[in-house]
Amino acid sequence: MTSEKNDEQLERMRHSVAHIMAEAVQCLFKEAKFGIGPTIEDGFYYDFELPRALAPDDLPVIENKMREIIAQDAPFVREELGKDRARELFATQPYKLELIDEIPDASVIVYEQGSFTDLCRGPHLASTGKVRAFKLTHVAGAYWRGDEKRSMLQRIYGVAFGSQKELDDYLFRQAEAARRDHRRLGKELDLYSTHEGIGPGLICWHPRGALIRQVIEDFWKAEHIRRGYEIVYTPHIAKLDLWKTSGHWEFYRDHLFSPMEVDGQQYLLRPMNCLGHISIYKSKLRSYRNLPVRYAELGTVYRYERTGVLYGLARVRGFTQDDAHVFCRSDQVEDELAEVLNLAQFMMSSFGFDKYQLLLSTRPEQYVGTVPMWEEATECLKNALERLDLRYEVDPGEGVFYGPKIDIKLEDAWGHVWQGPTIQVDFNLPQRFDVCYIGEDGLEHTVVMIHRTVLGSMERFLACLTEHYGGVFPVWLSPVQAVIIPIADRHIGYAHEIEASFKNDGIRVRVDDRSERMNLKIREAQLEKVPYMLIVGDKEMDSCGASLRLRSGEDLGLESLAEVKNRIRTAVEAKS
Amino acid sequence: MTSEKNDEQLERMRHSVAHIMAEAVQCLFKEAKFGIGPTIEDGFYYDFELPRALAPDDLPVIENKMREIIAQDAPFVREELGKDRARELFATQPYKLELIDEIPDASVIVYEQGSFTDLCRGPHLASTGKVRAFKLTHVAGAYWRGDEKRSMLQRIYGVAFGSQKELDDYLFRQAEAARRDHRRLGKELDLYSTHEGIGPGLICWHPRGALIRQVIEDFWKAEHIRRGYEIVYTPHIAKLDLWKTSGHWEFYRDHLFSPMEVDGQQYLLRPMNCLGHISIYKSKLRSYRNLPVRYAELGTVYRYERTGVLYGLARVRGFTQDDAHVFCRSDQVEDELAEVLNLAQFMMSSFGFDKYQLLLSTRPEQYVGTVPMWEEATECLKNALERLDLRYEVDPGEGVFYGPKIDIKLEDAWGHVWQGPTIQVDFNLPQRFDVCYIGEDGLEHTVVMIHRTVLGSMERFLACLTEHYGGVFPVWLSPVQAVIIPIADRHIGYAHEIEASFKNDGIRVRVDDRSERMNLKIREAQLEKVPYMLIVGDKEMDSCGASLRLRSGEDLGLESLAEVKNRIRTAVEAKS
Repeated sequence: MTSEKNDEQLERMRHSVAHIMAEAVQCLFKEAKFGIGPTIEDGFYYDFELPRALAPDDLPVIENKMREIIAQDAPFVREELGKDRARELFATQPYKLELIDEIPDASVIVYEQGSFTDLCRGPHLASTGKVRAFKLTHVAGAYWRGDEKRSMLQRIYGVAFGSQKELDDYLFRQAEAARRDHRRLGKELDLYSTHEGIGPGLICWHPRGALIRQVIEDFWKAEHIRRGYEIVYTPHIAKLDLWKTSGHWEFYRDHLFSPMEVDGQQYLLRPMNCLGHISIYKSKLRSYRNLPVRYAELGTVYRYERTGVLYGLARVRGFTQDDAHVFCRSDQVEDELAEVLNLAQFMMSSFGFDKYQLLLSTRPEQYVGTVPMWEEATECLKNALERLDLRYEVDPGEGVFYGPKIDIKLEDAWGHVWQGPTIQVDFNLPQRFDVCYIGEDGLEHTVVMIHRTVLGSMERFLACLTEHYGGVFPVWLSPVQAVIIPIADRHIGYAHEIEASFKNDGIRVRVDDRSERMNLKIREAQLEKVPYMLIVGDKEMDSCGASLRLRSGEDLGLESLAEVKNRIRTAVEAKS
Repeated sequence: MTSEKNDEQLERMRHSVAHIMAEAVQCLFKEAKFGIGPTIEDGFYYDFELPRALAPDDLPVIENKMREIIAQDAPFVREELGKDRARELFATQPYKLELIDEIPDASVIVYEQGSFTDLCRGPHLASTGKVRAFKLTHVAGAYWRGDEKRSMLQRIYGVAFGSQKELDDYLFRQAEAARRDHRRLGKELDLYSTHEGIGPGLICWHPRGALIRQVIEDFWKAEHIRRGYEIVYTPHIAKLDLWKTSGHWEFYRDHLFSPMEVDGQQYLLRPMNCLGHISIYKSKLRSYRNLPVRYAELGTVYRYERTGVLYGLARVRGFTQDDAHVFCRSDQVEDELAEVLNLAQFMMSSFGFDKYQLLLSTRPEQYVGTVPMWEEATECLKNALERLDLRYEVDPGEGVFYGPKIDIKLEDAWGHVWQGPTIQVDFNLPQRFDVCYIGEDGLEHTVVMIHRTVLGSMERFLACLTEHYGGVFPVWLSPVQAVIIPIADRHIGYAHEIEASFKNDGIRVRVDDRSERMNLKIREAQLEKVPYMLIVGDKEMDSCGASLRLRSGEDLGLESLAEVKNRIRTAVEAKS
């Protein structure tokens, strides 16, 4: 079957299951009034007015009744009725009557299966027995027609798939997604918090989250320096006039914080790092021989987002971009773009992402610059992509106001897709700010700027990493790499000796010297997802070693301290 | 002679030199009208109305005339005159007449030497011959009585000392200070810039300045982690209400930027990092066993300063504090303060500062909390200082509004004094924000907070370091540690091989492969104050080595690459 036919069939089944659920509810609650029951992604829902509030316990009862209906294999029968006949049929169903009134046609369609008839255009399965696999997931309140002035109905949600295996896979993925949710793990692993007092979307990085961030930042910096970038720092505020010149004030105002006033001048909290980098570039004369100039900054920016769209670390109001700007000659753009793409690939593979999608976003409705400029920039991006033999899709009209871009979407270990690196070509800001170099001809030429991130932002990247690894960070990223657990008090001294020696070798280690039982300490270290546990008692002290346990629960037995160190070092280097 | 008598004598001489200068000007410009001629730090000035603007060339001429007057050894003669007699005497001197009118007494004092008489209370030297050593330094415009609606006079500045040696020392120190001025070196060494477009007092760190900053930050972080601090990151903005609760809004408003509005709520750019750290601390329950908790952050803050007081990197509107907050029990405060003092000492000695002053600042006029709280906190600071056997002075009333503090003033290699580390005890914020722990007794107790920096801010510290080292940064802080200079084009490949090998070993190195003469490249590397120059030609290639030159000009001859690396590594480790 083609995928399209498959989808159509699935849709039909989900809709049929909604009717079957409604029939089951009718059997269980004679007084039930029925709202609507459409399909949604992965399943369906149905709204009911019931004599009492449903509890989670009700769902298995309804499911059982549904299974009976399915077992009866009753046919779905389509019938076209005049409106008067339909009104008679649904005389006790006020919501259905309301719907009938609104249908402009003279007649309406109803579907009947077993003891239940519903106002519905269909299509449906041939009979209830054709339903494969379904599950009711949860109940929520929903106003009739989404209008808070109308009655509050009870909405039962369910999912349905073409086979039990697909359903099981889906439920497993859902449980896994909940288990991996970075907001939950962020709390459990004590990575970050937000505070109503500070304001929504503003992240406080706790020591463990901050440690992961530092490891990422240090790695990022070293790799950038290796590749010829220079690190800079620029201010978080600048005069509003600068943002007027850049076009941000005009094109981006909805995402800007309101200006501040200083000495009668308006200042803006920066939404981007570009203007500081342009200022440094322009602080001296540049020759064609000095290009490309590549400035990189872990630059914190602030952008307004509506409270409703804020989401953990993934969508926030303040975030640190792993930003860089390349100032180059137009004959260097393609090479530089190819280098940036290569760096982005290197970064993604370093963090264990092997699946990603590339999107080339073109000119949006609101833009600065001329159409030929946009075309030239887009061409450069295409050529660089093709030079690296990368497959990409075009996302029309999704460019930034100042230029086209490549967005890289990372797929994490669980199939979630994340906004990752962004690479933008910009022919516009250099013109607006007169960003030039002296060419071989002795004349001034305007540079081309490339804006790029290769991780995105530290906040969103940590969210993505957390879900990708399900909190089980590889050793090099683990905030605590090893916990040393002394068996009795007389082993505490030895434990601290190991701690000092390991710390000295740059291994992040701590001693759990609380007066708790060893098994509790092991369990807690596992919950914390610490990669290595070193258990030390008499035997270990005598042999100058430690009994090694992994967070998976695997017991590796007694090893010498040198072996343990080596094992940790190897894992750190392998980034595994 | 006691220092006080010495000072009095010097003051008297400086004042006398001002009169001698006035006499010299009178000899050279018959039409001169005289303003006033007081002493100032290190010297004196005198304001004149003259028929033409003075040029720098005029100063030696005036100096020569002054030397003649000194050679005459004319006595300074004091006389008391009735006002009418005085008005006759100064009939052609409108400024003097104005002064006479304002003297409430019936008589005035004048001093006469040689051909010059001045309205003056004295005292003066016995005669002009007693002048030891002086120099005229510069001329500037000055409104009569500082009133811009009155005449603009010409002010000649000079300095005078008790001996030629003292004068020479002073002039050398002045020249040295100018040579070491971080604003000048910041430009010459390409360390940072400010931009009118961004706004005054907002620093853009150029790659070389940023590199020094990174070395400092990495060193700082490692040392803090070693000493039990945990690094965190917190937002640069927070709701205004938080700053009202903290007291900053009330006590610190003059130094705050104006609030921004987001979703109808006011937000403030942070002037301090404390509130983020408090929020993290409060994100979970803490037991007495968990204390002390030490959060460190390289936290950028923004404070309003008047444009007039902004000064290079030393006084700015946005700066990154090397901040930390220690949350502890009251029985831990003294230990923690002693630890912080020890860390501050370690940091200062790491950067080559062996002279500093300690100031204990006590309760200011405007303060929060109770007097007994302040006394307890002040006592803790005193005890910690005494425990470490540190000498300190008390600076009454100079504490922050929320607690007393220790300020450490660094003396740089040239005797300039810089505001360095600050250590503050705070019993107040913990109360205002209810920052607690569960004690051994199972009850809630309020923590004590210690606010501290051990460098101050990255901006001011770089200013201080730059002047301390006169731009000749020790190897570990040098942005470029070695330049490789190929003698001819055929040596460029070898130069790049060395570059790759050195970079691989973490040495910051670059190749100067421009087609310029070797001597020019050496000179430029010296001006850049690069510690090592590796000159490579045939001989060096054949022996797999390099000829090593130091920035001092010293030539160390041919060394193997391993020897050169070792030399650099040793210097880096020694921080020398």
